[in-house]
Amino acid sequence: MNAITPTRDEFEARLRQIGAERYHDKHPFHHMLHSGECSPDQVRAWVINRYYYQSRIPMKDAAFMSRVADPALRRAWRSRIEDHDGSQEDEGGIARWLKLAEGVGLDPDYVASEVGILPATRFAVDAYVRFVRDEPLLPAVASSLTELFAPGIHKQRIAGLLEHYDFANPDTLSYFNRRLSQAPKDVAFGLAWVLDTAVTRQDQDAAARALTFKTEVLWAQLDALYSAYVSPARVPPGAWKPGEGMLA
Amino acid sequence: MNAITPTRDEFEARLRQIGAERYHDKHPFHHMLHSGECSPDQVRAWVINRYYYQSRIPMKDAAFMSRVADPALRRAWRSRIEDHDGSQEDEGGIARWLKLAEGVGLDPDYVASEVGILPATRFAVDAYVRFVRDEPLLPAVASSLTELFAPGIHKQRIAGLLEHYDFANPDTLSYFNRRLSQAPKDVAFGLAWVLDTAVTRQDQDAAARALTFKTEVLWAQLDALYSAYVSPARVPPGAWKPGEGMLA
Repeated sequence: MNAITPTRDEFEARLRQIGAERYHDKHPFHHMLHSGECSPDQVRAWVINRYYYQSRIPMKDAAFMSRVADPALRRAWRSRIEDHDGSQEDEGGIARWLKLAEGVGLDPDYVASEVGILPATRFAVDAYVRFVRDEPLLPAVASSLTELFAPGIHKQRIAGLLEHYDFANPDTLSYFNRRLSQAPKDVAFGLAWVLDTAVTRQDQDAAARALTFKTEVLWAQLDALYSAYVSPARVPPGAWKPGEGMLA
Repeated sequence: MNAITPTRDEFEARLRQIGAERYHDKHPFHHMLHSGECSPDQVRAWVINRYYYQSRIPMKDAAFMSRVADPALRRAWRSRIEDHDGSQEDEGGIARWLKLAEGVGLDPDYVASEVGILPATRFAVDAYVRFVRDEPLLPAVASSLTELFAPGIHKQRIAGLLEHYDFANPDTLSYFNRRLSQAPKDVAFGLAWVLDTAVTRQDQDAAARALTFKTEVLWAQLDALYSAYVSPARVPPGAWKPGEGMLA
C-alpha cells in the first residue's frame, strides 16, 4: 500500500456522501409520512416500530460507555442517555415518543410493551446495539454519525406532520423539536472524535463501513414497515394489526 | 400457579401448532418459487440470500456446542456441522448450495463473498446465531425445531423446481435431496431432547417462544426478499442487482 491517506476534509466528505446516497430520508415511506399520504394506521405502525428503536438507543449508549476507559469520553457521551431517559418518569426522549403515541390514538402502555413490533425491526435494531457493543470504539462511534443527517429530516417531518395531520401539535411533536438541538450537539462531538481518531486509511474505511451499516439498519426498518403496512401490506404473523393497542 | 403442566404430547402438539401457523411454507414467495412463477433473477436473489443463512448454520451449531458441557450432547450435535461443511472442499451442504448457485448462472465465488446480501437477511440470520449463542440451552435447541416442518417444504420444492425450471436437476438440487435424510435425523434428536428437558410450564413456554422466534427469522428473510425483488421490488442501497455476480 503506497496510497496517501485522504485528508481530514476528504474523509469528512466521504462520510457525508454516504448519507447523501443511503440515509433513510430517501425512503418512500418518509415521503408518504411527510406529505400526508400515510393513513392513520400507517402512522401508528411507524410510531410503534420506531419506538423500539428509540427504546434501544440508551442501551446502545450504555453498551458503548461500558467499554470506554477514558472518563472524558464517557462524560461527553453521558448526556445521550440523559436526553433519552430524562431525570424522572415523564421526562426524556422516550417519554416524549410515548406522547406522540398517545397523540395518534395508541395506548402508550401497549407501545412500551413492545408487543406487535415487527420482527424485522427487532432484528435490525438489535444488530445496531450489538454492533456498538462488539466492534472497536472507532466504528462504534462512527455508526452514530447518521445524526449528521437527522436535523434536515426532523425539520421536514415537523413541518410536514403539522401541515397534514390533526394529531400534530407542539406537544405530540416535542420529541422532534427537542432532537433539533440535541442531535447537532451530539454529532459535533462524534464527528470531531471520528475525524481525529481515524488517522489511517484502514481506520477511515472502518468508519465508513460502520456508517454504511447504520444506514442499512435505518433503511431496513422502513422497508419492513412498508412491506407490512403499505405494499404488499402483508403483516407478518404476530405483528401489530390495525385496531390493536388503541387508547380506550 | 396451580395450573397443571401440559403433558409431553400436549407440549409437542403446541410446538407443531407454531409451525402450522407460522412456518415460512405459508409465505407467498415460496408459492411463487415452487409453482414456477419466479423469474430467473428472483430465483437468483433467493439463492444469494439463502446462502447467507446456510453459511451461518455451522457457526450457530459451533456456538451451541461451545456452551455444552455434556459430551453426549455435543456428540449428537456434531454431525450437523459435518453435514454442512463436509470433509473436503467440494463436500457438504454449503458446497451443494453453491452448485445450485452455479446452476442458476451465478458465480459461486460471488455468492460466497456475501456481497450483495440484503441487510435485512443479515440482521435476521445474525439474530438467530446470537440467540443460540446467548440463550439458555433449552431455547437454543428449541429454535432448531423448525426442521420439524422442513421435509415437507423440501419435497414440494424439489418437485416444483424440477417441473418448472430448466436449471433444476439432481445435481443442482442435491442440497435439498440430502436434507431430506439429514433433517429428520437431526430433528428427531432435537425434539426428543426438548420434550425431555422442558419439564415445567415455564420451560415449555420458553421453548415455544424460541421456536416462534425462529419462524420469525425465516419469515423476515422472505419478506425482505419479496420487498426487494417482487413487490414493490425496491432493492435497498448496496444489495444485489440483477446482472451482478453472474458466471462469465
